[in-house]
Amino acid sequence: MTSPVRVAMLGCGTVGSGVARLLKRNAAAYEARVGAPLELTSVLTRREHPRPADLAELPFTRDPEKLFSEHAFDVVIEVMGGIDPSHGYVRRALDLGIPVITANKMLLAVHGPELLAHAVSTGGDLAFEGAVGGGIPIVRTLRDALASDRIVRLRGIVNGTSNYILTRMREGRLSFAEALGAAQAAGYAEADPTLDVGGGDAAHKLVVLAMLAFGAEVDHDAVPTDGITDVELLDHDMAARFGFALKHLAVAELTPTPGGGEATSLELRVHPALVPLDGPLANVNGVLNAIELEGEALGPCVLVGRGAGEQATAVSVVADLLDIARALRGGGARSARLPLRKMPLRPSGQGIARHYLRFPVYDRPGVLARITGALGEARVSIEQMVQQGRGDTVQVVMLTHEAEVGDVRRALAEIAKGDYLAGPARSFRVA
Amino acid sequence: MTSPVRVAMLGCGTVGSGVARLLKRNAAAYEARVGAPLELTSVLTRREHPRPADLAELPFTRDPEKLFSEHAFDVVIEVMGGIDPSHGYVRRALDLGIPVITANKMLLAVHGPELLAHAVSTGGDLAFEGAVGGGIPIVRTLRDALASDRIVRLRGIVNGTSNYILTRMREGRLSFAEALGAAQAAGYAEADPTLDVGGGDAAHKLVVLAMLAFGAEVDHDAVPTDGITDVELLDHDMAARFGFALKHLAVAELTPTPGGGEATSLELRVHPALVPLDGPLANVNGVLNAIELEGEALGPCVLVGRGAGEQATAVSVVADLLDIARALRGGGARSARLPLRKMPLRPSGQGIARHYLRFPVYDRPGVLARITGALGEARVSIEQMVQQGRGDTVQVVMLTHEAEVGDVRRALAEIAKGDYLAGPARSFRVA
Repeated sequence: MTSPVRVAMLGCGTVGSGVARLLKRNAAAYEARVGAPLELTSVLTRREHPRPADLAELPFTRDPEKLFSEHAFDVVIEVMGGIDPSHGYVRRALDLGIPVITANKMLLAVHGPELLAHAVSTGGDLAFEGAVGGGIPIVRTLRDALASDRIVRLRGIVNGTSNYILTRMREGRLSFAEALGAAQAAGYAEADPTLDVGGGDAAHKLVVLAMLAFGAEVDHDAVPTDGITDVELLDHDMAARFGFALKHLAVAELTPTPGGGEATSLELRVHPALVPLDGPLANVNGVLNAIELEGEALGPCVLVGRGAGEQATAVSVVADLLDIARALRGGGARSARLPLRKMPLRPSGQGIARHYLRFPVYDRPGVLARITGALGEARVSIEQMVQQGRGDTVQVVMLTHEAEVGDVRRALAEIAKGDYLAGPARSFRVA
Repeated sequence: MTSPVRVAMLGCGTVGSGVARLLKRNAAAYEARVGAPLELTSVLTRREHPRPADLAELPFTRDPEKLFSEHAFDVVIEVMGGIDPSHGYVRRALDLGIPVITANKMLLAVHGPELLAHAVSTGGDLAFEGAVGGGIPIVRTLRDALASDRIVRLRGIVNGTSNYILTRMREGRLSFAEALGAAQAAGYAEADPTLDVGGGDAAHKLVVLAMLAFGAEVDHDAVPTDGITDVELLDHDMAARFGFALKHLAVAELTPTPGGGEATSLELRVHPALVPLDGPLANVNGVLNAIELEGEALGPCVLVGRGAGEQATAVSVVADLLDIARALRGGGARSARLPLRKMPLRPSGQGIARHYLRFPVYDRPGVLARITGALGEARVSIEQMVQQGRGDTVQVVMLTHEAEVGDVRRALAEIAKGDYLAGPARSFRVA
C-alpha cells in the first residue's frame, strides 16, 4: 500500500467538521483519485467542547507546539479563521516547505501577497479555493479555465448574509432591522453582524478576487466600502418600479490608461447597487452568491452558487487537498504560481454611472425646484422622477442619466445644506 | 531559450482562427505561463480559400500525410468538427503518444470513451474544455473543482441557436419559422439547422457532460431527444401566464436504486421545458448557455456564459493548450484520468413531473369533459386550466399536478384518438 498523505487540520468549526466528514464519507473515492489514502493525523482546537458522535474519534490536540515540533503531516489545512494565531501557524507550516490550504479570506486579504511570496521562497504552496465564493468554483475558473483570456471586469454578490437580508426585506416587506433579526434567527448572521452588513467581508473577498483575476496586490484598507445598513424597504420598491433589483455588489474594473496602453490602475468598490431585473444578478436571492466576469475574448460569464456554509466551503477545501495530495504523490502538479504586482487603486469618486437618488423632503412649494436646480448646476440630468407619499414629508426619488460620480457627489453635498430635507438622502449606483 | 512547444492545428474555421489570434496576441503572457514559447508549426486545411491579412502568414498545409509523417509537433489541436476525417486524425496523433485538444462534441459523443481509452494506452492525452459550454468553464469545474463532491443532477441550456430562436420568438412575437430565419440572418443558425433545432447537438453535449459529471459511458443514440420545432408563440405566452419561461433543456439525473444503494442508472433527456420565471435559467437569453449542477454536498450551482462563437470556444481550447504545454515542459501535470464505466440509460417515459399540455380543439359542447375525463382516468390531475380564443377552434391549456410521465403519455394517446382535436396536442415537462 502506498503510504498515506498525512493531513493536519487547524480548527474544527463548521468548515473543519465538513472537511472531516467528507474525508470519512468519500475515503475510497479520494484514495482512487490521489493514488494514496488521505489521513487526518492531527486536528488542532482551541477549546475542549463536546463533539458530535461521528467526529469524536478525530485526533484532536490543543497543543500547537507539539503539533509543529512533531511535524507528522504532509499538508496543513487552516480553517480557524481570523488573523491571529492563524497567520503565525500558516507561516510556520510554509517555513517547513509544507503546502497549506486555507479558506480564510481575511487572512488572504491582509497577508495574501506576503504568504504567497513566502510559499514560493520555501517551496511550500498556498491554496485557497474555499476562501471566496463558497459553493462557486471561482478560484479555479480564474486561475485555470480563463488563464488564456484577460479579465477586464468582475462584479459579484459575495456576502450571503447581506444578500439574505436584502432578499428578506423585499419578499417579506421587512425593515432592515427586522430582516437582520430574521437572518440571525436563521443562523445566517452573527450576533455582531458588522463584518457582513458593513461590507468588510465583501471587501476582503474582492481583494482576493482581484489577486486572482488581475494579479493585483492592493492595499485592502483602500477599498471604498459601503454596507447595506442604509437600505430601506422603500428603496427596494422604487428600484423595482424603475426596473431594477437592489443588491450588494463587490466590483473590480481595470481602468484603461488615457493613452490607450496597458491598464495600470484598478478600481475596487463595495456598495449597494441597482441591477437590471432581467439581468443575471437580479434573481440571485437568499444566501446564494454570484460572480459575473468579463473576459476580453470570452465575454460575460456568470457563476452562481451557495455563498457559504459548512458543506460548500468544505467541498472547495477538499478539492484543493486532492490537487495537492496528487502532486505530492507524483500524479499531478499544482496550478501555475500566481504572479502579483502592486497596483494602485483608482481613487473613489471617479467614473461615470447612472444613479438612484432618494430625498425625503418636507412637502413645501419650491423644494423640487431647488433639488433639480442643484443637480442641473452639477451637470446631473434626470431620466425619471417619482414623488411618493403625501403629508408632511414626501419622498422624491430619481433615476439620473449617466453622470460623473464626482458631479453627483457635489450635487448631494449642496442639497444636504438645504433646510428642506426631512432625513438623509440616499444614493446608489446603477451597476 | 527553452525550445518551443510545437503545435499542429487541424482545421482553421472560426474556432481555429480564434485560437491562432489568441496565440499571436497573447504570446508573451503564454510563454511566461508555460515557461516556453508556443509555436504553430502546421495548420491543416481542406481547401484553399482567402484568409484575412492577420492569418495569411500561418503555416498552412493541405497534406495530412506530410503533416503526420514529418511529425513536427508536440501537441495537436483538432478544430475541424465532424467525425470523418477528424476521428482518424485524432487516433493517429494519439498513436504517436501525442496529447490532443479537441472542441468536437460530436466526435466525443460518438467516440469519446474509445478515444479516452486509447489516450491512456498510448500515453497521449485528450482534452476537451471547448467541446461543451463554449464560454462556460464547465469541463474543468466538473473534473477538478467538484472532484471532491458527487454530482447528482445536471441540467442546462446548451444549444445557443435554439435558445436564440426561443428568445427571438418570445421577445419579437415571431413564429418559429420567422425566428429561425432571423437566427440564420444573424449567423447563429446554419443553412441546415437540423442538428441545432432538432436537439441532436444538445444531446451530443449532454453525453459529454455525463462522461464528466458521472463517469458515465452511455449509448449516444439512446438519449430521448426532442427539439424546439413544435414550440409555438402561444406556448411562450401560456408558459408566462403560468409563471414559467419555455427553454430547451438537456437534463441528466442519477436514478437512485429502489433498495437505496449506489445509483446505477442514469436518465438523460433533451426537450423543451418550462422553467420558473424567478429561477436561474429563465433569464438566460439569446445565445447564452447555462448549466445548473447539483452536488450532494455543494448544493446547486449555476454557470452562465456565451454558448459558442469563435472567441469563447477558442479561449477554452487555449486554456487546455496551456495546461498541456506546462505539463510537457515539466511545470505541471494534467488532471486525473477520467475513469468511465458503462451505465444503462433509464428508459424514457418513467419518472414524475408536472406537465404543460395544450390541446387545439373544435369549440363544441362536451369537449372539455372528454379531455379531463381521459386525464382523470390516467390519474393525471389538473392544477390550472385556461381556454384561449373563441370561434371554431379554441386552445385548452393546462398545467398538471405531478404525474407519472407514463400516465400523461397514455392520456395523450387516448385524447389523440378523439375527433375533437383541431391539431396536434403539445406536451412539455415542467423542469
